[in-house]
Amino acid sequence: MEGVDHLAHERDKAQFDVNDMKIVWAGSREAFEVSDRMARLVANDPAFRKDNRVHLTRKELFKNTLRKAAYAWKRIIELKLTEEEAGRLRFFVDEPAYTDLHWGMFVPFLKGQGTEEQLRKWLPLAYKMQIIGCYAQTELGHGSNVQGLETTATFDPKTDEFVIHSPTLTSSKWWPGGLGKASTHAVVFARLITNGRDYGVHGFIVQIRSLDDHSVLPGITIGDIGMKFGNGAYNTMDNGVMHFDHVRIPRDQLLMRFSQVTKEGKYVQSDVPRQLVYGTMVYVRKTIVIDASNALSRAVCIATRYSAVRRQFGSQDGVETQVINYKTQQSRLFPLLASAYAFRFVGEWLQWLYTDVTKRLATNDFSTLPEAHACTAGLKSITTAATADGIEECRKLCGGHGYLCSSGLPELFAVYVPACTYEGDNVVLLLQVARFLVKTVSQLVSWKKPVGTTAYMGRLQHLMESTCKVQKSEDWLNPSIVLEVFEARSARMSVECAKRLSKFTNQEEGFQELSPSLVEAAVAHCQLIIVSKFIEKLQGDIPGQGVKEQLQKLCSIYALYTLHKHLGDFLSTSTITPKQGSLADDQLRSLYSQVRPNAIALVDAFNYTDHYLGSILGRYDGNVYPNLYNEAWKDPMNESSVPDGYHEYIKPMLKQQLRNSRL
Amino acid sequence: MEGVDHLAHERDKAQFDVNDMKIVWAGSREAFEVSDRMARLVANDPAFRKDNRVHLTRKELFKNTLRKAAYAWKRIIELKLTEEEAGRLRFFVDEPAYTDLHWGMFVPFLKGQGTEEQLRKWLPLAYKMQIIGCYAQTELGHGSNVQGLETTATFDPKTDEFVIHSPTLTSSKWWPGGLGKASTHAVVFARLITNGRDYGVHGFIVQIRSLDDHSVLPGITIGDIGMKFGNGAYNTMDNGVMHFDHVRIPRDQLLMRFSQVTKEGKYVQSDVPRQLVYGTMVYVRKTIVIDASNALSRAVCIATRYSAVRRQFGSQDGVETQVINYKTQQSRLFPLLASAYAFRFVGEWLQWLYTDVTKRLATNDFSTLPEAHACTAGLKSITTAATADGIEECRKLCGGHGYLCSSGLPELFAVYVPACTYEGDNVVLLLQVARFLVKTVSQLVSWKKPVGTTAYMGRLQHLMESTCKVQKSEDWLNPSIVLEVFEARSARMSVECAKRLSKFTNQEEGFQELSPSLVEAAVAHCQLIIVSKFIEKLQGDIPGQGVKEQLQKLCSIYALYTLHKHLGDFLSTSTITPKQGSLADDQLRSLYSQVRPNAIALVDAFNYTDHYLGSILGRYDGNVYPNLYNEAWKDPMNESSVPDGYHEYIKPMLKQQLRNSRL
Ligand SMILES: Cc1cc2nc3c(=O)[nH]c(=O)nc-3n(C[C@H](O)[C@H](O)[C@H](O)COP(=O)(O)OP(=O)(O)OC[C@H]3O[C@@H](n4cnc5c(N)ncnc54)[C@H](O)[C@@H]3O)c2cc1C
Ligand SMILES: Cc1cc2nc3c(=O)[nH]c(=O)nc-3n(C[C@H](O)[C@H](O)[C@H](O)COP(=O)(O)OP(=O)(O)OC[C@H]3O[C@@H](n4cnc5c(N)ncnc54)[C@H](O)[C@@H]3O)c2cc1C
Ligand SMILES: [Ca+2]
Repeated sequence: MEGVDHLAHERDKAQFDVNDMKIVWAGSREAFEVSDRMARLVANDPAFRKDNRVHLTRKELFKNTLRKAAYAWKRIIELKLTEEEAGRLRFFVDEPAYTDLHWGMFVPFLKGQGTEEQLRKWLPLAYKMQIIGCYAQTELGHGSNVQGLETTATFDPKTDEFVIHSPTLTSSKWWPGGLGKASTHAVVFARLITNGRDYGVHGFIVQIRSLDDHSVLPGITIGDIGMKFGNGAYNTMDNGVMHFDHVRIPRDQLLMRFSQVTKEGKYVQSDVPRQLVYGTMVYVRKTIVIDASNALSRAVCIATRYSAVRRQFGSQDGVETQVINYKTQQSRLFPLLASAYAFRFVGEWLQWLYTDVTKRLATNDFSTLPEAHACTAGLKSITTAATADGIEECRKLCGGHGYLCSSGLPELFAVYVPACTYEGDNVVLLLQVARFLVKTVSQLVSWKKPVGTTAYMGRLQHLMESTCKVQKSEDWLNPSIVLEVFEARSARMSVECAKRLSKFTNQEEGFQELSPSLVEAAVAHCQLIIVSKFIEKLQGDIPGQGVKEQLQKLCSIYALYTLHKHLGDFLSTSTITPKQGSLADDQLRSLYSQVRPNAIALVDAFNYTDHYLGSILGRYDGNVYPNLYNEAWKDPMNESSVPDGYHEYIKPMLKQQLRNSRL
Repeated sequence: MEGVDHLAHERDKAQFDVNDMKIVWAGSREAFEVSDRMARLVANDPAFRKDNRVHLTRKELFKNTLRKAAYAWKRIIELKLTEEEAGRLRFFVDEPAYTDLHWGMFVPFLKGQGTEEQLRKWLPLAYKMQIIGCYAQTELGHGSNVQGLETTATFDPKTDEFVIHSPTLTSSKWWPGGLGKASTHAVVFARLITNGRDYGVHGFIVQIRSLDDHSVLPGITIGDIGMKFGNGAYNTMDNGVMHFDHVRIPRDQLLMRFSQVTKEGKYVQSDVPRQLVYGTMVYVRKTIVIDASNALSRAVCIATRYSAVRRQFGSQDGVETQVINYKTQQSRLFPLLASAYAFRFVGEWLQWLYTDVTKRLATNDFSTLPEAHACTAGLKSITTAATADGIEECRKLCGGHGYLCSSGLPELFAVYVPACTYEGDNVVLLLQVARFLVKTVSQLVSWKKPVGTTAYMGRLQHLMESTCKVQKSEDWLNPSIVLEVFEARSARMSVECAKRLSKFTNQEEGFQELSPSLVEAAVAHCQLIIVSKFIEKLQGDIPGQGVKEQLQKLCSIYALYTLHKHLGDFLSTSTITPKQGSLADDQLRSLYSQVRPNAIALVDAFNYTDHYLGSILGRYDGNVYPNLYNEAWKDPMNESSVPDGYHEYIKPMLKQQLRNSRL
């Protein structure tokens, strides 16, 4: 049966050109080709095997990751890969490693916060991996509240050094990835104190391990913080704890782009605008949104293929129904498929936003920054939350078999969920968005014109009064109607919050009291952004037979599913009527039927290798059962038929001799 | 700092007697005392340690579980524990084991399906654990569709035996807990075939391993199906695969309470009504609902205590705000606290229902059976779904630290989620409820009066016309108003579904097409049951200072939170107005503030030991940070400061000698 494509009949049904869709998904032909090449490179190299992960002990697992990271780096050098290629290769290796932090946080942060001189010194070392860096911000006692960090960096003019110190237990650095075992250097965040004055939290480059023998440097205590969620998952990463006992570093290891301390201990702000730090943040969060689409599409690919393989009930002609044909299955699965595409395109747009912000910053134009900041914060929050939930829903969509590690879904969930917490707790981020929205509304009366993703607020009057024009279910396929409905809902929720806030004498108290509603307004705003960017994408040129049509259906599914899920918002703001809501449901069901024959091809378009998917249920060829069966036998538990422990713990019980046994 | 109660100030705030609440939670003083005694017994016995689980390999983990199970059984015998005590002891051991299936499925199933004679033979063996039994229903290819099972049991009159056989790969038994390594016997479900005719799926007692040396009997192949979600979690269980090659068992090992096969091969139904099988199903699902309240309360206990310990932001007087004081945190946490209590009381009521059904069955009264069946199916579905989601929400409520295994939450999630799948996939169950509701509605015109939890449908006319009387937010505290609103919403959704169904010429097609809406109607009905049973509970006598008041607040929180979450349902059926919805939100916020000072005491009332909680974040004494810190150092990764693998995989990279290294 190997070599047979059990899903061929599904692939034949597709009404669009899957190769063209692959390019749309990848972003461009070039991006597709790089990805495709790197995916195969990894998949075909036995050094990158990952099917044996679940049985390794923590130490074996970690050592295995060190091996893969070194080997990947070796291949990157040997093959002279470009930065883009190297990034894709690491992506397909698909295992959290210290290199993620080195390349994803340490290097970007240096670039963002270091002076030209500092970059000249440190960047070449980092680029060649002659040093390994991590990002040490969070402490045992402080995560979300960065300003509350307790680690101190006190300037000592006598020696021209900063003294890094952990004054309390809770000031221990806690969580930084790559810190526990691998890193030689860290960007350490600490309160800068000079001349007895506390200037708040700043970043410092601190060497933490010897470059000779990797021993931890004197005065520093470092360890791994222990097991995390799942079996493999993030346990390949050495998230660490670090404690400083008056550790001295040269003055010039303060990251000095924005502020310096003179030899005499004087704190001086540079003329580089502090706002530039937001550039890095936009960059990192943009990456997280794209990662959300990667993780969600992966789960959806597994669940979709398996739903076409799995048959249960309803045998009329003897063959049972594929579970993908059940409307409940479709109503759970297809919105996630649509979300994966939606997150992809909003990620693509964030890529543009990042370039735009960077250009503007270069010319000291900060006008779009608050909006860009709020928008990336909000999109990070809602895409990661939806992805985490979506992965688990995909697991449930696979019934019992989804619970096996060989389905790939449990570990995908375990490795993904911290995205809801790191780089900003999702709720804390939404509260920031809400603050921004309330401010935007309050400034509408003034001359300030809302920009970017809040531009719609400029048409507030209209949006407060407009009525939804849907009369029959097909009207819900009209993008301008959908867009206006999402704009009206969001605007009305923000205005409602602002109104209720204005009744409080103490605004901060009001904000606290109303925060659950404010978070909902923020969610509404971010969902609007996703819908509008999907629609925008479809207004452009999209080549390929049938491709645009499919994407239009997915866009409608994303919008109408969101509308259904948050129907209370739309009805309570009188944005739509109950009748219109019911017409949306009708249209949604019809869209599910239209997407159904294209479902397999729509997940094929992600172009994932079986290696990357790491799932027997999601195999490209759909040959699930024999492979599930064979995989089971590989478990060490099956090395012997009679289990270890039988003689001590089962036999005496069966033989009624437990009482005398020494347990 | 050990011995200091860091949460004492929180406990002092409580406005009710926590000891009385403990008894309400446990169900009775006797139940409390048994539970309390057993919990301490387990917690104080080092043999039941579980903090070392995450570092064991699969085989070590499993052996460790065998040890605990044998030791628990030994203690049960030594201490001459009652059945109830033994059950509680196993519960507090808190580790999935083959004994769960033996006591929870094998024994009840024997009792339900065996004849007197069969019980006389098998029950004593099972009770003394001279045999170990499991429940082998699911196959690789069939789970939800039990009627589609492929295993055959063909009667051979020549030898007076059944021949059990697995005709295909997909007919392999797959998933049964305890099957892989521990069980000696199984109830095997197979198609009974005699005289060339297929009589459908029946249960058979099959010995699968030798009682001498535990070897698998000839013709049978058995293995473990491999790693499952999480680290410890369900990996302590030997879920198994089993294949039969023409295995012969005596004719009298067909479970014969409902039907027999004569020596000549004639299939005869007994005069025992088949409906009795539903008794066992009600029993098992009742247990699952109670388990939901256990699991959810455990997660809520951890998240609540930690939210009172954790401080972040908002330092005015120098001390930061406890995160439990944030309204967003409350709006996520307190509804789960309320749900834990709500599920507790509905579980208690299901206990009554089970007794009632059993009594009625004894007198051949089957009138309440369809209703009881639908209601347990639906409650199983919505309580397990809410609990799975709730555990993960509790994990997120703990920020980064919730992601550590030492928080207890990742493993609790991993071990809990299959409850959404086993004993009936949650969506499949809701579809059954929906069928029942549609039928109930269609029979309203006839003489048939709806009974039990559907009795409200008897007042359909009134419910279709009634308007919600809420005018100010306090009106939402009125139980009869709340109840009627939930009844109206549910009735209207069911009627709407029935109406739309009637437009289809083919009812089955219509049902398929509308199934997403039907599932929503089923959810509405089940939520109504939970609200109504909570209200009913509060109408009874509840002793203890302040206890009833607290429960009233929790009941209102459960109802109003559910209303908020499903606002679309209530508005689109015109059950309430947007204004009334907004008043409900106001009331909800006020209730959160009222519950806040009682939060810690409300979770203390669960009476969980630190052993059972298995969470540093949820420690009774709130002494989180030093314990988190110390726990980290126990990870084997910290045995050496320089990690295993440094010389091979880190040093050559740092020294730029990778090219020459052999990786
Ligand atoms: C896998 C993983 C990897 C990580 N990697 C790194 C790394 O490399 N480097 C690094 O420095 N850190 C890292 N972190 C830490 C991460 O950045 C923090 O966990 C994150 O910032 C959240 O902070 P916290 O854990 O303190 O959550 P908390 O702030 O304690 O959150 C707890 C709860 O309080 C709520 N809350 C907090 N403040 C408010 C408020 N003002 N209003 C309302 N609610 C509030 C939150 O919503 C949450 O429900 C990592 C974490 C994880 C899990
Ligand atoms: C931890 C664990 C322990 C278990 N223990 C045992 C045990 O001891 N003994 C035993 O016999 N079994 C056991 N099982 C198996 C369990 O009972 C089945 O997994 C369960 O019945 C679900 O069936 P399935 O896996 O075939 O799911 P499927 O039916 O394949 O479900 C797949 C998807 O199809 C959907 N679907 C299926 N039918 C329909 C329909 N008619 N309409 C709409 N949608 C549909 C489902 O909603 C789901 O989304 C266990 C399973 C687990 C995970
Ligand atoms: Ca492990």
